Amino acid sequence: MFSAPAHPLGGPQTQRAVENFPVSGQRLERAHIEALARIKGAAAKVNAELKVLDPDIAGAIQEAAAEVASGRWDEHFPVDVFQTGSGTSSNMNTNEVIATLATERLGREVHPNDHVNASQSSNDVFPSSIHIAATAAVTADLIPALDHLAESLGRKSAEFAEVVKSGRTHLMDATPVTLGQEFGGYAAQIRYGVERLRASLPRLAELPLGGTAVGTGINTPPGFSAAVIAEVAAATGLPLTEARDHFEAQGARDGLVETSGQLRTIAVSLTKISNDLRWMASGPRTGLAEIALPDLQPGSSIMPGKVNPVIPEAVLMVAAQVTGNDATVATAGAAGNFELNVMLPVIAKNLLESVRLLANASRLLADRTVDGITADVERARAYAESSPSVVTPLNKYIGYEEAAKVAKKSLKDGTTIRETVLASGYVERGDLTMEQLDEALDVLRMTRP
Amino acid sequence: MFSAPAHPLGGPQTQRAVENFPVSGQRLERAHIEALARIKGAAAKVNAELKVLDPDIAGAIQEAAAEVASGRWDEHFPVDVFQTGSGTSSNMNTNEVIATLATERLGREVHPNDHVNASQSSNDVFPSSIHIAATAAVTADLIPALDHLAESLGRKSAEFAEVVKSGRTHLMDATPVTLGQEFGGYAAQIRYGVERLRASLPRLAELPLGGTAVGTGINTPPGFSAAVIAEVAAATGLPLTEARDHFEAQGARDGLVETSGQLRTIAVSLTKISNDLRWMASGPRTGLAEIALPDLQPGSSIMPGKVNPVIPEAVLMVAAQVTGNDATVATAGAAGNFELNVMLPVIAKNLLESVRLLANASRLLADRTVDGITADVERARAYAESSPSVVTPLNKYIGYEEAAKVAKKSLKDGTTIRETVLASGYVERGDLTMEQLDEALDVLRMTRP
Amino acid sequence: MFSAPAHPLGGPQTQRAVENFPVSGQRLERAHIEALARIKGAAAKVNAELKVLDPDIAGAIQEAAAEVASGRWDEHFPVDVFQTGSGTSSNMNTNEVIATLATERLGREVHPNDHVNASQSSNDVFPSSIHIAATAAVTADLIPALDHLAESLGRKSAEFAEVVKSGRTHLMDATPVTLGQEFGGYAAQIRYGVERLRASLPRLAELPLGGTAVGTGINTPPGFSAAVIAEVAAATGLPLTEARDHFEAQGARDGLVETSGQLRTIAVSLTKISNDLRWMASGPRTGLAEIALPDLQPGSSIMPGKVNPVIPEAVLMVAAQVTGNDATVATAGAAGNFELNVMLPVIAKNLLESVRLLANASRLLADRTVDGITADVERARAYAESSPSVVTPLNKYIGYEEAAKVAKKSLKDGTTIRETVLASGYVERGDLTMEQLDEALDVLRMTRP
Amino acid sequence: MFSAPAHPLGGPQTQRAVENFPVSGQRLERAHIEALARIKGAAAKVNAELKVLDPDIAGAIQEAAAEVASGRWDEHFPVDVFQTGSGTSSNMNTNEVIATLATERLGREVHPNDHVNASQSSNDVFPSSIHIAATAAVTADLIPALDHLAESLGRKSAEFAEVVKSGRTHLMDATPVTLGQEFGGYAAQIRYGVERLRASLPRLAELPLGGTAVGTGINTPPGFSAAVIAEVAAATGLPLTEARDHFEAQGARDGLVETSGQLRTIAVSLTKISNDLRWMASGPRTGLAEIALPDLQPGSSIMPGKVNPVIPEAVLMVAAQVTGNDATVATAGAAGNFELNVMLPVIAKNLLESVRLLANASRLLADRTVDGITADVERARAYAESSPSVVTPLNKYIGYEEAAKVAKKSLKDGTTIRETVLASGYVERGDLTMEQLDEALDVLRMTRP
Repeated sequence: MFSAPAHPLGGPQTQRAVENFPVSGQRLERAHIEALARIKGAAAKVNAELKVLDPDIAGAIQEAAAEVASGRWDEHFPVDVFQTGSGTSSNMNTNEVIATLATERLGREVHPNDHVNASQSSNDVFPSSIHIAATAAVTADLIPALDHLAESLGRKSAEFAEVVKSGRTHLMDATPVTLGQEFGGYAAQIRYGVERLRASLPRLAELPLGGTAVGTGINTPPGFSAAVIAEVAAATGLPLTEARDHFEAQGARDGLVETSGQLRTIAVSLTKISNDLRWMASGPRTGLAEIALPDLQPGSSIMPGKVNPVIPEAVLMVAAQVTGNDATVATAGAAGNFELNVMLPVIAKNLLESVRLLANASRLLADRTVDGITADVERARAYAESSPSVVTPLNKYIGYEEAAKVAKKSLKDGTTIRETVLASGYVERGDLTMEQLDEALDVLRMTRP
Repeated sequence: MFSAPAHPLGGPQTQRAVENFPVSGQRLERAHIEALARIKGAAAKVNAELKVLDPDIAGAIQEAAAEVASGRWDEHFPVDVFQTGSGTSSNMNTNEVIATLATERLGREVHPNDHVNASQSSNDVFPSSIHIAATAAVTADLIPALDHLAESLGRKSAEFAEVVKSGRTHLMDATPVTLGQEFGGYAAQIRYGVERLRASLPRLAELPLGGTAVGTGINTPPGFSAAVIAEVAAATGLPLTEARDHFEAQGARDGLVETSGQLRTIAVSLTKISNDLRWMASGPRTGLAEIALPDLQPGSSIMPGKVNPVIPEAVLMVAAQVTGNDATVATAGAAGNFELNVMLPVIAKNLLESVRLLANASRLLADRTVDGITADVERARAYAESSPSVVTPLNKYIGYEEAAKVAKKSLKDGTTIRETVLASGYVERGDLTMEQLDEALDVLRMTRP
Repeated sequence: MFSAPAHPLGGPQTQRAVENFPVSGQRLERAHIEALARIKGAAAKVNAELKVLDPDIAGAIQEAAAEVASGRWDEHFPVDVFQTGSGTSSNMNTNEVIATLATERLGREVHPNDHVNASQSSNDVFPSSIHIAATAAVTADLIPALDHLAESLGRKSAEFAEVVKSGRTHLMDATPVTLGQEFGGYAAQIRYGVERLRASLPRLAELPLGGTAVGTGINTPPGFSAAVIAEVAAATGLPLTEARDHFEAQGARDGLVETSGQLRTIAVSLTKISNDLRWMASGPRTGLAEIALPDLQPGSSIMPGKVNPVIPEAVLMVAAQVTGNDATVATAGAAGNFELNVMLPVIAKNLLESVRLLANASRLLADRTVDGITADVERARAYAESSPSVVTPLNKYIGYEEAAKVAKKSLKDGTTIRETVLASGYVERGDLTMEQLDEALDVLRMTRP
Repeated sequence: MFSAPAHPLGGPQTQRAVENFPVSGQRLERAHIEALARIKGAAAKVNAELKVLDPDIAGAIQEAAAEVASGRWDEHFPVDVFQTGSGTSSNMNTNEVIATLATERLGREVHPNDHVNASQSSNDVFPSSIHIAATAAVTADLIPALDHLAESLGRKSAEFAEVVKSGRTHLMDATPVTLGQEFGGYAAQIRYGVERLRASLPRLAELPLGGTAVGTGINTPPGFSAAVIAEVAAATGLPLTEARDHFEAQGARDGLVETSGQLRTIAVSLTKISNDLRWMASGPRTGLAEIALPDLQPGSSIMPGKVNPVIPEAVLMVAAQVTGNDATVATAGAAGNFELNVMLPVIAKNLLESVRLLANASRLLADRTVDGITADVERARAYAESSPSVVTPLNKYIGYEEAAKVAKKSLKDGTTIRETVLASGYVERGDLTMEQLDEALDVLRMTRP
């Protein structure tokens, strides 16, 4: 679990790091290795343009980096996530793998530090790779998944537009809503999640690249970072920019903490939605049973015939995980000193995992649950009509306090609001007409006042 | 809000601190001031015994300290919680108030540092005062409140021993339980909370007192700390002990972090219980409506006659607050360096507030909600009997897979399990007898298999 | 502590709530009461325009609401924060106080529900009041305070532009930076905090007002909410808007959770900055001692002459509190069900407290610490020159591996990098000229490569 | 990544779950699969004894379960952690793998539900497996690792017993301590961590086994659970017990939340220790440089010769991860409803990962860092002697206020405390003798007053 492959492409620093850090068995996320390799390839190209590197060496590095970026050599990245806090071991792992591949191709030595890492430092490359990987994962994976879920919810909102049901506040009977209005609210929550991500993207997509060791850009030729970032941006289509202040970018990882906070808010949205779905589908006989979720698998190893809301449960667990990952990211983000935060790999792991989990969970929720939801239209309407809160529109005719008496009497007597109003003489006394009463107690009308 | 009283007893350091820290307007908790004053009084007594202080001065300090401990001079403690991280400002505030009072009584100068603070340092006194205040609050306030709640839940468990209802797992219909069994489980959760507190008490009740500035006990006469702690323990009845390792006790506040974690677990218990109560009481017509909570106040400013589960909601908010307070305590607890943690006042505030909130919420939940809960016995039994999971005892006669078919067929046809079993010929075929069937489908019997 | 004033303006529901919730002794924040009152005043005006209310009654309500908004009657808001989760008790407290005042002025009865609360529900008014109060506090209090701090840091950045010092990564000697670059980075962090708040403001400033009980706007005349929001926006200058989806706005409080996450990120920034300041000022003889902070108060009750970084410590405690408050807000935000989140008051308390603490702490840090910081220019330069990492610019002349040998030899021999380079013959061998060596080892130059 | 092996031993429910939950690619922890299999084996044995199962079938199940427990068939457990919240899919995965293996061995059908799962439910088996796995990991892995670390720290405490250095409070110069005292404090912190785990063990080692579906133990023969637990306890040597209240044990997972809180406190301890080590080792020329950590790998890809505190950094990242995992566990633990918590797999993952990370990190810290630490004895003593706080013992001769003047004058003049005392005439005036002065200013003596 902690060992490198048989013929490792990594060199001595990779090997040393494998020995030094037998902690978790967890490695960098795929998107993270890709981002590191993309930087190396672009840096080689720009280094050649700026006469820092021999063009042949640069070419060999570019080719090797492209292979690494594609995922072909992932097993050669054995370094544990819990390593040196700067990610230097993973940066050197990348340098060494690319140097080995490039040396093989070129037939002469390509050096991990002097060539592959030329004009760079772990201290600017490694955090840049996190920002790139996270920007890619957010824009190419999570936002489309959220859009997909919002569309699914939106379709159900339209489908259920006329399904009137009782609203519930404090879990108690309230005035009517439609099931479509509820699903519309869920869709809005998810779309707002996309807004949240986009609002934070400018700071997520800002890269420390060019600061090298401490933010000053020592050992970097003029124009290097701008050209490398342009290169990676062009290759990936991501809105990457260079840090506006390289000392902020070197010492702080606040942009990652901020994005993690937005992911946490999305987890909060998913929690609300999943819980509502679970409760509406509860039963079938001892719960609310307003909707039914698709039956995906046997629910119990002992109770035959049981069907459970398994996808919403998985989504709730994802949300709990993202909440915890966010606490880790914030704890780590606050731990920087001077020119470096040395909790980078753990920030990367938690942030990228959260993005991935939320994306997968969102698609799953859409495809295997929301799309297949059906409503029990009659039961929903029966709830709406039985709620004592349908007395609310009568406030304007008889006042809040009389209306409260009607509601309480109905509950006590087991009668409908309509029956109680009639029995109590409000119409006879002229507080309202029969027509007004009928209109006031129309539950679907109450949902579009 | 940030100013001292008209004729302040505090001296120049109190005044300076008031000016320096206009942050929150929040002051030390009452229990905290009391603990500080108790240390000062006991220290004066022991200092006199050890010939460090003139007996008259010591006597005056003891009298003044007793008054401060009683709460009489609380308004003279204006220093903000968000102050110097060692609590030096509050320690000096205490020293100065007591010195002023003692000087008045004695008619000659009692010095805040040389007399009131003799043989002490903020660095051992202030954290000791947190441990004392928290030990007192946990043992004299929270544990009795939890016992009170456990008893209330226990009484309901006995009262509802025969109220059979449907169990629910995944929110879905499951095999029967009694309402009494559920309340018994809640009572057990709360009693376990008491166990948790007691399990951590040995480390909470351990005091850094005697370490003075850095743990070495510089400027403290031999025997001082043991005698002072014995004095405070005797006066309060608390199981206080001296730190086993004064350098652990000086540099770390892990005992407070641990206790905060236990409070957080109690908050988790209260969350589960409050949510169950809210859901069981949901309705009255569109929810589960198995139980009714006492009607304490009008539930809505617009929907007449609405009654809401307001106390469980308040308890849930307390639980959320305790969860956040715990995050603050842990963040602060991890921030120590070398011979001091300089997040002490914020740890104190959050820990003591959590204890107080949990104690008040537990009593409130017992007195205003649990004690008045009534069960809808018929509805509960109807749920139990309608649950398709009552098929479960038939596994041993017809196997899990046949039983699943029965459950699904019942649901589809809208029939009872009994009807489906009979219609499907299991009895005719001799899989089980009518007697076995009756026994197997007895819902109350299923709760005591 | 839990009792109402002698001649309370609140009515029976206020009194009932005071009795029902003896939990914390904490009341609504000032800004929150103001927001509630502003809604009531604007609603009365619009209700009159829409013929829902008699103009005289509306006028009396407006006057009373203006007084309440001004803070004059705050002591008549005794309801505990830990109350019913919808804030209905505080909404009714507001309704009752205003009704009492308006009745006195008008000489005839103004009803809390039928008049003051007309066209409203706690379920839309109370959360709207949180959004308004938070928007006001963020834009009028926190953002200016952050700007103030960023300016203070920016001035120091300019002042220290030429103060060269050693960079530190992993806490270890690195290549040089200027103190001005570091302060510039801090200023950037704070300015980014402002960006973060502004990025989330659109969703914070969106109000559920108009949804009334469940989002449908039952009992609200057409045009009511738009007119009330326009009224409040005009009166306050805040960028308030109506919810784009009233069901999202009713069931979720994600906009508050998001803003809390941004506050948490600002707390992370302040943690980094405060820790750097504390460490740079550590000493004066056994620490880094690169800078000195203003001496605000005696640092120790036992160690004479000690001066401590008390303001950064207070700021760190604020940051820890905000982190915990954020956990509370997120926990509470995830707890909504159907048409209401019933953790509103605890969300309000924690969010508004965080804003206030961060604003006060930022101003304090600027005024009492940053503005008075002085640098030990010589010591800082000596550090820069002694760091073995100044060998880094030699990579391009002698390669990374030879440079590493020079650095290790210098450390072992206790010599400077320059001495080791000369002694090792690199110049003699022509790897670089003396001129190149001098230029390469110029520490200030290394900060602007 | 999400697919089952070529010839899967799992059956249709395993396959269904693999399809249903393509979320994270993460599977159950090894210790968790072992615990599940141990329950199955013990249950088969007891079921045979109680005549529930045919002895041949039971024997085949026992053999198969033993193989699964050993880890031989782990690749046949492909179900994602983020699955149904009861862990039913993983329980059925276990049932199916064992049934397949047992069927092969026995030559006749062994049924996953009717035989392997006999007398059990996912709802008691799956949480029991978490408690067993966590109890095993805590007692057999984490506690020994902590003991190992405490011993390592204890050895250093003895080695450094005479190394006097300056204490630091608020990061500022304080009175002297020995490095041995500091390491003794760290050792105590770690030993207290072991106490914390042992204090919570009684509730961690309590198993819901026997409650089956909802706590009532439906479909379980009398004596079953006690016998199974005794069997597992005997086989593993773990102090396992049956739940004292099966309804607490079914509906709540508080014992796991509590243990997670204790792990979090241990993470807090490790954070303090790691930070102290990092700072003491900072430099070598621009930091404190009191100690040196072993040089494990090149520290920088750009700055040659740099050595970083990589193991303490890895430990700090582990601590941040454990903090986040704890937040996940608490969030999940609070989410139970009625007779089940449906966040079980995510609780298991986070709790077991935290135990594993802390154990590995503790051993690593001991073996690769603490054991190799060396002290710079002279530098440490020079710090001790230069600290102005060595004036503290003079309080008793000249009073706190005069002593403060001496300290400030020394700092201003750049003189030692001794020089200032002599120059200020205290000895001449007879405030103290030369002998008293010498004794008072002996720094090593100050560490053992």
